[in-house]
Amino acid sequence: MRVDSDLLGNMMIADDAYYGIQTERARLNFAVSGRTAVDIPNYLWAIAAIKRAAAEANCQIGALAPDIAKAISQAATEVMEHKFDNQFPIDVFQGGGGTSTNMNMNEVIANRANEILTGSKGYNVVHPNTHVNMCQSTNDVIPAAMKITCCINLADLICVVERLKNVLEQKTNDFSHVVKLARTCLQDAVPITLGQQFSGYFHQVKRLHQSLIDARQQTFSLPLGATAVGTGLATHEGYLEHVYPLLQQITEEPFVAEENFFDGLQNGDAYLEVAAQIKKLAVFLSKMATDFRLQGSGPRAGLNELYIPAVQPGSSIMPGKINPVIPELINQIAYQVIGNDLSITMAVEGGELDLNVWEPVIIKALFESCGLLTKAIPILIDKCLIDLAPNVEVCRRYAEQSTALATVISTLFGYKIGSQVAIQAFEQNLSVKEVAIAEKILTEQQADYLLDPLTMTDPAASSAAINRYHRESK
Amino acid sequence: MRVDSDLLGNMMIADDAYYGIQTERARLNFAVSGRTAVDIPNYLWAIAAIKRAAAEANCQIGALAPDIAKAISQAATEVMEHKFDNQFPIDVFQGGGGTSTNMNMNEVIANRANEILTGSKGYNVVHPNTHVNMCQSTNDVIPAAMKITCCINLADLICVVERLKNVLEQKTNDFSHVVKLARTCLQDAVPITLGQQFSGYFHQVKRLHQSLIDARQQTFSLPLGATAVGTGLATHEGYLEHVYPLLQQITEEPFVAEENFFDGLQNGDAYLEVAAQIKKLAVFLSKMATDFRLQGSGPRAGLNELYIPAVQPGSSIMPGKINPVIPELINQIAYQVIGNDLSITMAVEGGELDLNVWEPVIIKALFESCGLLTKAIPILIDKCLIDLAPNVEVCRRYAEQSTALATVISTLFGYKIGSQVAIQAFEQNLSVKEVAIAEKILTEQQADYLLDPLTMTDPAASSAAINRYHRESK
Amino acid sequence: MRVDSDLLGNMMIADDAYYGIQTERARLNFAVSGRTAVDIPNYLWAIAAIKRAAAEANCQIGALAPDIAKAISQAATEVMEHKFDNQFPIDVFQGGGGTSTNMNMNEVIANRANEILTGSKGYNVVHPNTHVNMCQSTNDVIPAAMKITCCINLADLICVVERLKNVLEQKTNDFSHVVKLARTCLQDAVPITLGQQFSGYFHQVKRLHQSLIDARQQTFSLPLGATAVGTGLATHEGYLEHVYPLLQQITEEPFVAEENFFDGLQNGDAYLEVAAQIKKLAVFLSKMATDFRLQGSGPRAGLNELYIPAVQPGSSIMPGKINPVIPELINQIAYQVIGNDLSITMAVEGGELDLNVWEPVIIKALFESCGLLTKAIPILIDKCLIDLAPNVEVCRRYAEQSTALATVISTLFGYKIGSQVAIQAFEQNLSVKEVAIAEKILTEQQADYLLDPLTMTDPAASSAAINRYHRESK
Amino acid sequence: MRVDSDLLGNMMIADDAYYGIQTERARLNFAVSGRTAVDIPNYLWAIAAIKRAAAEANCQIGALAPDIAKAISQAATEVMEHKFDNQFPIDVFQGGGGTSTNMNMNEVIANRANEILTGSKGYNVVHPNTHVNMCQSTNDVIPAAMKITCCINLADLICVVERLKNVLEQKTNDFSHVVKLARTCLQDAVPITLGQQFSGYFHQVKRLHQSLIDARQQTFSLPLGATAVGTGLATHEGYLEHVYPLLQQITEEPFVAEENFFDGLQNGDAYLEVAAQIKKLAVFLSKMATDFRLQGSGPRAGLNELYIPAVQPGSSIMPGKINPVIPELINQIAYQVIGNDLSITMAVEGGELDLNVWEPVIIKALFESCGLLTKAIPILIDKCLIDLAPNVEVCRRYAEQSTALATVISTLFGYKIGSQVAIQAFEQNLSVKEVAIAEKILTEQQADYLLDPLTMTDPAASSAAINRYHRESK
Repeated sequence: MRVDSDLLGNMMIADDAYYGIQTERARLNFAVSGRTAVDIPNYLWAIAAIKRAAAEANCQIGALAPDIAKAISQAATEVMEHKFDNQFPIDVFQGGGGTSTNMNMNEVIANRANEILTGSKGYNVVHPNTHVNMCQSTNDVIPAAMKITCCINLADLICVVERLKNVLEQKTNDFSHVVKLARTCLQDAVPITLGQQFSGYFHQVKRLHQSLIDARQQTFSLPLGATAVGTGLATHEGYLEHVYPLLQQITEEPFVAEENFFDGLQNGDAYLEVAAQIKKLAVFLSKMATDFRLQGSGPRAGLNELYIPAVQPGSSIMPGKINPVIPELINQIAYQVIGNDLSITMAVEGGELDLNVWEPVIIKALFESCGLLTKAIPILIDKCLIDLAPNVEVCRRYAEQSTALATVISTLFGYKIGSQVAIQAFEQNLSVKEVAIAEKILTEQQADYLLDPLTMTDPAASSAAINRYHRESK
Repeated sequence: MRVDSDLLGNMMIADDAYYGIQTERARLNFAVSGRTAVDIPNYLWAIAAIKRAAAEANCQIGALAPDIAKAISQAATEVMEHKFDNQFPIDVFQGGGGTSTNMNMNEVIANRANEILTGSKGYNVVHPNTHVNMCQSTNDVIPAAMKITCCINLADLICVVERLKNVLEQKTNDFSHVVKLARTCLQDAVPITLGQQFSGYFHQVKRLHQSLIDARQQTFSLPLGATAVGTGLATHEGYLEHVYPLLQQITEEPFVAEENFFDGLQNGDAYLEVAAQIKKLAVFLSKMATDFRLQGSGPRAGLNELYIPAVQPGSSIMPGKINPVIPELINQIAYQVIGNDLSITMAVEGGELDLNVWEPVIIKALFESCGLLTKAIPILIDKCLIDLAPNVEVCRRYAEQSTALATVISTLFGYKIGSQVAIQAFEQNLSVKEVAIAEKILTEQQADYLLDPLTMTDPAASSAAINRYHRESK
Repeated sequence: MRVDSDLLGNMMIADDAYYGIQTERARLNFAVSGRTAVDIPNYLWAIAAIKRAAAEANCQIGALAPDIAKAISQAATEVMEHKFDNQFPIDVFQGGGGTSTNMNMNEVIANRANEILTGSKGYNVVHPNTHVNMCQSTNDVIPAAMKITCCINLADLICVVERLKNVLEQKTNDFSHVVKLARTCLQDAVPITLGQQFSGYFHQVKRLHQSLIDARQQTFSLPLGATAVGTGLATHEGYLEHVYPLLQQITEEPFVAEENFFDGLQNGDAYLEVAAQIKKLAVFLSKMATDFRLQGSGPRAGLNELYIPAVQPGSSIMPGKINPVIPELINQIAYQVIGNDLSITMAVEGGELDLNVWEPVIIKALFESCGLLTKAIPILIDKCLIDLAPNVEVCRRYAEQSTALATVISTLFGYKIGSQVAIQAFEQNLSVKEVAIAEKILTEQQADYLLDPLTMTDPAASSAAINRYHRESK
Repeated sequence: MRVDSDLLGNMMIADDAYYGIQTERARLNFAVSGRTAVDIPNYLWAIAAIKRAAAEANCQIGALAPDIAKAISQAATEVMEHKFDNQFPIDVFQGGGGTSTNMNMNEVIANRANEILTGSKGYNVVHPNTHVNMCQSTNDVIPAAMKITCCINLADLICVVERLKNVLEQKTNDFSHVVKLARTCLQDAVPITLGQQFSGYFHQVKRLHQSLIDARQQTFSLPLGATAVGTGLATHEGYLEHVYPLLQQITEEPFVAEENFFDGLQNGDAYLEVAAQIKKLAVFLSKMATDFRLQGSGPRAGLNELYIPAVQPGSSIMPGKINPVIPELINQIAYQVIGNDLSITMAVEGGELDLNVWEPVIIKALFESCGLLTKAIPILIDKCLIDLAPNVEVCRRYAEQSTALATVISTLFGYKIGSQVAIQAFEQNLSVKEVAIAEKILTEQQADYLLDPLTMTDPAASSAAINRYHRESK
């Protein structure tokens, strides 16, 4: 055990710990969720990248001795390589706007840097605040690290969304000849193709994909250099000009300084924006999942027009039952994502004066949401979408039976006659075609080309049919 | 026009206005939603009832001259009789924790009381603050009025919920012999009766009904007498002892003083409680509405097992289409109620120090939710539930066809054999009964009594069938 | 009274009513909130504009006789001119995805067009479905009208946000020399200027302004022409090519057809996007309002560093009290807007299959939020921001007294010595300057230029001071 | 490796795994959050308790051979003793309403029971479905286990809330003589004691404590015995009568069967109720935490009336800064709890037909919320509340300086004179007392007893002072 001290006194720290007294205090103060910074993908990587960029910048401007800078840089790099993942024991929920996590990083890097330089831990040569945190404050480091984390994690999400987009485009083509009945208000409407249904999904995801890319733009500008309150107090001359190019080099992303640092510290709208786009994605996925569950309901007492791939038995008691478990996974993730969006909203709304200190809950909620979708979308694709298949026969039967085919009758003969045909079809349990012929509204041949469900799904074909009718009946 | 003044200066007020300068300022300050106190049922009634009780109490303890008290009491009664509804022009959204609405009431009553006593408006004899507001503060009057309003409005809601409960009980009985297939994960499960399904609704509503009654209990204790911050400063001796009996008499509800006035002013948990119970009700109604829409989907490309009464044509373009518009109304009301619960939550969470001043948004959101449900439930009953009817034939067909009937095979011969029967039935498009007989697992007679769907809905009948089988096959 | 009929039967309609049986049924079916389409600014205007464009397009392509088209166009124009505002009695909450409102419009226009052509109401010449609704379905008209409404209403909101942006920029300049103390975690931090604080607001609003403009882009593409389910069934050849130019001409906005109509009917992400941007705005305004309330707290037992203009007396019992009622109005509007965002989220998530039919609650919630902010921001500007003023003396005193000025000591002499000075200052109730001089860490002259609060707010000045120190102390 | 099979085919399972093919499939299907059933305190314990009770009940009624029952019971007990915690690898998010977790338990117990009886794993003697799951379905086991888990976890939460209640009562007494100024709308109001402020907290927590106890009542009734859809299909005669007494014995809690099993499976209102009460608790804690942060703001540029115990240094850059990190922890937990309440709400609202299958996300969200508060409240007590102390001098100074003391002047001489005194005091920077004396409204002696802040906090003392004044001035 070694002694470490801070302004509140001394504590004993285990010899093999690279962290110090502030980490230890925080570990005890915040043990509520069992989740730590390590559970947030790329978060520690981002903070360490900042520390490395700052040390190298401070060296370049002459504020930090080269050997100290080099040791800090090496220690930070080791953190980025996950060599110290077990040295970050503080709960992800914490007061103080992330000061504890920032100090945890400062302490680990300082102890490791001292070890590199002197062979033993301690702060004799490298001090967590004076050197590792030089030109920085928790108040600029943590929001900057959040944005970097966001940038990286969004890239992963965007990547799986792109794959989803492509798969949906493929399905749109695959299903283009499957005619089925559309439903509005869950009631029988007029025919569409399954490909048209999926084209709606495809275009939606195309837009969502773009929205995520746009939102990611907002993560490129960082408050790094703002220090405590936006004025950059305690930064050395030239720091700002050096730290960003170094950070770009280390992270390979185009990070730049915020236009206005006060704005950068006060406001969390970038997280609201990212959360909103993630929520939009989740909301759509949930809607699509519900569609699949509805269309795949049955097999005998449901719509039974879609085969959802079986991935596991569905019941401990009812043999042979298969459930749409992957769509159901998606619905539930959406519920959590929507809840998290609210938590983030409250955290941003609750900001006070010169700094939003509710970053920890934003980190927890935002990256939980992002991670759930990044993990779930490939499952959705591989275990559900790829092998999703229509029940072609059922689909066609539904399309032919709908009384809403009388819409064509309305178009030709007015709404009143259309209604009469629809009602008669319904009451006599006939198809619209049968009634139209029986009532001598259409000849059989006319009915054939006017009331073909596949024709109705194509406005050009449908117009052509109507024109043909008008031409022929002149 | 007449001149009125306050600590900020003078304003001209229209001669026929009973309100004064503070109302006029607030009218101009808060014109955002177009809704005023008059749009909140019973709210003005509640404030006026408090004014009347306070005046009479103050008279009884000798703090207010009898003629002034009598005039205030009469003016307040006239407000309660809706004679001054057009004198409350302030937006329901307002800063200041309801001070403007309280002063609006004080001004209207003072002007009217002066008119009663002197023949003309003004504050010569009766002053809005000194007399009408005597022993009161906005800070105790407004939350007390909110609770009174809540108490009354909840009574109306509870009343319609009770009717709903009774109708659902009736339906439970009416539908007790309609056998149908239950679905879990929207997949075919084992048989139940439609009556059993509705018995679930009935018991749920029974519990919700009780929850609302319980929540209403929390509206009986008022902070009236707390004045500005809970200490009762500026109340006269005896006021508290006299005002509550008078208030009980006027309102005919058992209102009493809060156990602790500081708690009463600081915290809005009573509104959270009421909002939570209203949300629970809305969530259930939405779930039931979704069930109806699913079961009523079709008529040909849906489940088609429930006839939802037609209340209006469903499409401007598709003749003969009928939509489940009443259930759809319910779903949407639930979305609004859930959103309002969040607004209320934020308002209660946002309370600071000695008084929660976010009452106006709580009032708006809570009573919007309460009113929507109070209005919608009778519509749901009369235009949907009463005439809701099963498609008996379809229901029975679904029940007989389910492969999950193989559960009975599992119970008798183990899960493995059950599974084989289920799979064979599915693949060969047969019923479980047909497979069980074909595979000589059961005789036809055994299959008849073991696989009868109605039997399966009754645990006693089902056990009896299994016992009979065991007995017979020994 | 006249008789009107639909597929469910006949009803008596008042002679002076321009609406017909479907409106009357819906009026009775949905009476829950007391709000109607008239309460949604520009909504009826948008539907009527569509009807007019459709009639003129149908005339141009020869599907509608010129006199009928002209009469419809005139009737629609009269609706746009608010001449029939009292003819839309249906509740804004409604089932059926807006069919009732669409039919209400069709009926009013049909009756009025008949009146124009024949001198009396009725559908003898112009039929609501056959003619007024020609080539349309509720399913494309209502979402198209929502987007048009959104487009127009957002323009109003953007306009007031732009004014807010300009006022905040002005304040940034006005307050640039007012030095004060920044606070993080509500604890004393280092100095900033009030101008810097407001520069954060200004840049935030600049970004929000742009976000709203971007979101508005998403309202330009309409599903008009999709008819019932996206296939454009029942549209006549050429309709699509003619209707959009006409609509652009009538509305003076660049509306175009959605890239994919199925997407357009299935998904409500455009509303989620608009709601998200409105929520971001509300969240920021609420944060800023909270800042004002905190900084304006007092006058004697609070921070007392900001004078919030007095707009009305603050208490019915405590004379002389003034409350920050305008900021409080903003906080509460934010709570409602956040609640409404949730309602909209649920409505979009709840979409099923080929059409999202929850538009009515989206309309209600979205335009309530939009309207509240459009009305409240000018109030915030005129009654609060314009005359907001700093308490310069108090601001400076806070800035000079903070123990966090020891940050400068840390920068020069390391974190440990910085801490000692800070603690000593706190414990002995001295300023950092006093301690630094007393402890001979700095000379008086050095302390003067190093610890001047205004210097600390400017990174260049601050660096220059530190450089000067290093230069002088070599 | 061993082979296991189900209706979808075969898989290889590691030899040392006690789980089987269904667990393995689910592990691969749902890997999204990294959290498993083990992360939900007492959840696996509850399921195992049910399995044990069921096996013993089935033995008692003769449906299960004694040796098999005994082996199942022993295996279940071992699970309850955490001996197989590493055998539950399935994600807490999952489709299928918990079927995977139920089957995971069935498989582990079956393999372990076979091992006990035969020395090797496998299902030769004991089968997961046929024996371990006998008389059960996922659909009754999982919701029953959720309620048991809820019951146990709530007991822990109630326990810490009770401690909080007691500490707040103690503080109420400790602070009863500390006079301070109350604030409404963050503006100076009239005096209260700090003890009175805390008495508000105490009474609120007393009520919240009771609400949690009441909500816990709703967890005592279980759907166990409902099997798949509420009909109890596949239960043996006598099972129901035997399983509950056994379950009560095993769990030592008074669990009984739901009044109506259909209700029990359809509806999740019990979770909504528990979530609502937990949210109410979180909302209050957040409000109190905000109070502490406001009152503890400073030390020099804030209210500075409360000393929040220092538990860690507050800044990486500003030496000597201490932040209210424990209250800040509480605020953030509240944001997450409120978000989770929404997730639960959506999950309950999204229930369809005969079973709510969204239990997994309810479990995740509800027990995260419950766990966060159960862990955080003791931290709040021990690291913040216990040593919280007033700045007595500052508190008294605020109380004496408020211009709202003029409320007493109003009470005696009317609102107008009260206002004049208040304004004069404000404008001339005097106390109300000084103005009242200077203006000869009160003598010095009268002012002493009428305007003593401590007197004003006590209605009796205050009334006595006013009576004394009236008596003396007659």
